[in-house]
Amino acid sequence: MNETKIILPDRDIPRQWYNIMADMPNLPKPPLHPGTKQPIGPDDLKAIFPMSLIEQEVSTQRWIDIPEEVHKIYSLWRPSPLYRAHRLEAALNTPAKIYYKYEGVSPAGSHKPNTSIPQAYYNKKAGVKRIATETGAGQWGSALALAGSLFGIDVTVYMVKVSFNQKPYRRIAMETWGATVHASPSTITNSGRKILEADPDSPGSLGIAISEAVEDAATHDDTNYALGSVLNHVLLHQTVIGLEAKKQFELAGDYPDVIIGCCGGGSNLGGVSFPFLQDKINGKQLRVIAAEPISCPTLTKGEFRYDFGDTAGLTPLMMMYTLGHDFMPPGIHAGGLRYHADAPLVCQLYKDNLIEAVAFGQTACFEAAIQFAKTEGLIPAPESSHAIRGAIDEALRAKEEGKEKTIFFNLSGHGYLDMTAYEDYLAGKLVDYAYPDEKIKEALAKLPVI
Amino acid sequence: MNETKIILPDRDIPRQWYNIMADMPNLPKPPLHPGTKQPIGPDDLKAIFPMSLIEQEVSTQRWIDIPEEVHKIYSLWRPSPLYRAHRLEAALNTPAKIYYKYEGVSPAGSHKPNTSIPQAYYNKKAGVKRIATETGAGQWGSALALAGSLFGIDVTVYMVKVSFNQKPYRRIAMETWGATVHASPSTITNSGRKILEADPDSPGSLGIAISEAVEDAATHDDTNYALGSVLNHVLLHQTVIGLEAKKQFELAGDYPDVIIGCCGGGSNLGGVSFPFLQDKINGKQLRVIAAEPISCPTLTKGEFRYDFGDTAGLTPLMMMYTLGHDFMPPGIHAGGLRYHADAPLVCQLYKDNLIEAVAFGQTACFEAAIQFAKTEGLIPAPESSHAIRGAIDEALRAKEEGKEKTIFFNLSGHGYLDMTAYEDYLAGKLVDYAYPDEKIKEALAKLPVI
Repeated sequence: MNETKIILPDRDIPRQWYNIMADMPNLPKPPLHPGTKQPIGPDDLKAIFPMSLIEQEVSTQRWIDIPEEVHKIYSLWRPSPLYRAHRLEAALNTPAKIYYKYEGVSPAGSHKPNTSIPQAYYNKKAGVKRIATETGAGQWGSALALAGSLFGIDVTVYMVKVSFNQKPYRRIAMETWGATVHASPSTITNSGRKILEADPDSPGSLGIAISEAVEDAATHDDTNYALGSVLNHVLLHQTVIGLEAKKQFELAGDYPDVIIGCCGGGSNLGGVSFPFLQDKINGKQLRVIAAEPISCPTLTKGEFRYDFGDTAGLTPLMMMYTLGHDFMPPGIHAGGLRYHADAPLVCQLYKDNLIEAVAFGQTACFEAAIQFAKTEGLIPAPESSHAIRGAIDEALRAKEEGKEKTIFFNLSGHGYLDMTAYEDYLAGKLVDYAYPDEKIKEALAKLPVI
Repeated sequence: MNETKIILPDRDIPRQWYNIMADMPNLPKPPLHPGTKQPIGPDDLKAIFPMSLIEQEVSTQRWIDIPEEVHKIYSLWRPSPLYRAHRLEAALNTPAKIYYKYEGVSPAGSHKPNTSIPQAYYNKKAGVKRIATETGAGQWGSALALAGSLFGIDVTVYMVKVSFNQKPYRRIAMETWGATVHASPSTITNSGRKILEADPDSPGSLGIAISEAVEDAATHDDTNYALGSVLNHVLLHQTVIGLEAKKQFELAGDYPDVIIGCCGGGSNLGGVSFPFLQDKINGKQLRVIAAEPISCPTLTKGEFRYDFGDTAGLTPLMMMYTLGHDFMPPGIHAGGLRYHADAPLVCQLYKDNLIEAVAFGQTACFEAAIQFAKTEGLIPAPESSHAIRGAIDEALRAKEEGKEKTIFFNLSGHGYLDMTAYEDYLAGKLVDYAYPDEKIKEALAKLPVI
C-alpha cells in the first residue's frame, strides 16, 4: 500500500458485532456469585444492567446485530482510518510494514465510545434515567458522558483520584458533556468511606472506583451501572475496530503477521484482535500481543484464578489472570491500564496460547510515543504508547533479522487530554515502577480459594 | 444528504491551491516599507522569508501547484470530513440544513498545519535551520512545531503570555514535537523588553509576539520567520479546505447559501470561503460571514487604512481593517482571534461587499459550543465556537422565517487542548468584554497617516 491511509465510506460501518464466544476453543468458566460462590444467572445482574446487555454477556451467537440508532451515532466518527506508518518505518529503517488504526477520531478521543453508545442505547430503551460508572484516566468516563448527552441519560462518574488530579482536562470534558464527576475514593459511598478510613491518602484504583459505582447503582432504583471494559458485551462492541480493519487490510492487499494492542481491562485488545483471531482459530498464521505496563503486569505476572472485579468484593467472581483485587498499582500516567485483572475472554485466550503478552516500563513507552509524534504527527494517549512500544520493538527485531513483516497496532486514543504526562516525561520526572513479585504473591495469598 | 459525513479518498486531496488574487475585483493595495513608506519589493522580505513564499505572496496566478512532499504530508489527515449536522438541526428544530467541515482531524487539532507544512517545506528547501514564530492560543505554534518535527527544522515560538498561562497543554504539545516556547512579552528580544519596561504585567498580544519573532528572525542568519495568518500565501495554502468542501458539496448534491468562518487573522475564513467566492464573483448567490469576538471587533468596528502587522512597527504597513497596532484586546479564551487587524485579502473583500461580518460575546459562543458538543459530540476550539454561534443564529433565523437554507461553517479546530476555557464557562466565570468604541478611536488616532 503506497497511500497513507485507507478510509471506508459510512456504508462500510459494520452492521453486526463479532462474538468470539462462538469460535473460541474453550469458553471462560462462568462468573460466580460473590456470596454463594455459585454460577450466577441473568437475575443476579438485572439490578444494575438492562436485560439486552445481560443477553449479550452470555450469548454464544457468532454475529449480533448493531441497532440502527447505534449505527447512526457510530457514523459520527466511524469507520476510523487505517494508516500505513510510512514515516515511522523510514525513521526506524525497518523492512517491516507498520499499520495502525486510529480510534482517536471519536469525539471522546478513544475507542471507548464504541461501547458507551450501545450501552447508553440499551439502558435508554430499558427506561433507565441515570448510569453510574468508574473511570481511570478518564477515557471511559468521557465516552459514557458523551453517550449520556446523546441519549439524554444522566451520568455519574467515579474517577480514580490520582487521574482526577493528573488529568483535569478529562474531568472538564466529562462536565462539558453534562456528567457529574467525583474523585474516588469518595465520601459518597460506603465502599469509598471504608477505603478512606483505612488510608485517607489513597490514590484510588479502578477496583475501588468500580465498587463505588456498583454500590451507587445497586442502591438507587433509577440507576444502572456500566463498565468500560472486562465484560464480554464490552469486548463484543469493540469488535467494530477489528472488523473494519479486516476490510481495510483487504483493500490494502495485505494481512498482519502480528497485532498489538495495549491491555488494561482488555477491551481495546479484544476489539482490534478478535475478528482476526477467528482466522487464527481457523488455522491462519498470526500473533496477537497484549502490551501491558510493568507496574500492573496482569498477564505476565498474575495467576489464572477466580477473583472479584472490584476491590470491595461486590461484583461476581470471574476467572481471570489477576494480581489480587486489592492490588494497588502505582500511579502511572496510563491510568487506563491500572486494573488488577483482565477480561475473562482475553484471559482464556491467553491461557489457550492464542494471545501473547509483554510488559513495558512507562519511560520506554513515552520514548516510543514521542518518536511516533515526531514522525506520524499524532500525539498518542499514554495507554496507546504501550502498543507503539511493542510495534517499534517488533519492527526493530524484523530489521535485525532482515525479515519483512506486517505489524498492525491499534492507536486506541490521542493524548491531547493527557498532556501533563508528556510534561512529566519531558521534564525527566517519570519513574518506571516495576511491581515487586513478593507484593503480588502477598495480594494473591489473600484471594478466596475456589 | 442522508449520510452523516462525506469523506473523500486520499487521491482527492487538491493538487493546486486556489489564488483569489486572480479573480477579486480589486487587489489589495501594496504593503509599504515601515521606514520609507514606499511599496516594498521581494528584496525587503528575503531576510525573513524564502523566495518561493515571497513569490506566492505577490502572485496573481489562479492555480498554484502543491509540492508532492507537502501533498504526502497533507494525507496524514486530509481530506478532512464534511459533516451534515443532523443532530444539531433536530435540536434546533430548524428547516435549515447545517454542514460543517472538521479541520480538527489534523495532528495539531486545527486547520493551521495546512500552511505550516508548506511553509516548513519551502524553508527547508531554502536551507533554513530554524524558524521563529508567534502564537496566540497556541494553535499556530503547535502546527509549526509539528511541521518542524516532520522536516527537521528547529522551531522557536513566542506564545502570548495570557494564553501561555491559560493553555499549558498547548505549550506541552509544542514541546512534545520538539519546539522551544517562550511566554511573550519575553526578556529575549528588544521588543519584548521594551513592552515589559512599560508594563511588567502585560498579558501580551499577537502584535507583540509577532514583533518578537520577527526581531529574532531578523537578527539571526540561520533563522526565518513564519506567520500563521494574515499574509496572502497563508490564505492561499488554506484554500485546500474550501476546495475539498466544494467537491464534497457536489457529492452531497447541495451548495451553501451561507458560509461562516471565525475570523482572527483571516486564514480560516479565507481558506474555507475563497474557492466559493470565486463562484460568487462569477455571479452565484452566496453570503460569506466572518464571525469575530466583540472584544476584538476588527471588521465590525475597525477602520480600513494602512497599519503595521505588529505592535513594535517592524513589519510592513498593510491595508487592513484595524483597531490600531497597539490595541490590547482583553484576554478572552479564543486567543487566536485576538489580533488587531485582518488579512489584507479578507479586508479588501469585505470592503468590496463580498464578505459580511458579525461580532459575538464569548459567553454566547461557549453556549453554542456546548450545544454543539452535546448534539454532534465534538468539543470545539473556542475560536471555532464563534462560527458555530453564527451558524446556529442563521439556523434559528431560517426557522423564524420558515425558510429552507443551506448553512456551512468551518469547525476549524477541536478544544481538547483548551479545556480550561470550558471550565471557566461552566463555573460561570466568563466575562463578555465588549471593546469600548472610544478606546478604539484613541488607538486609531495614533496611527501614521498615509
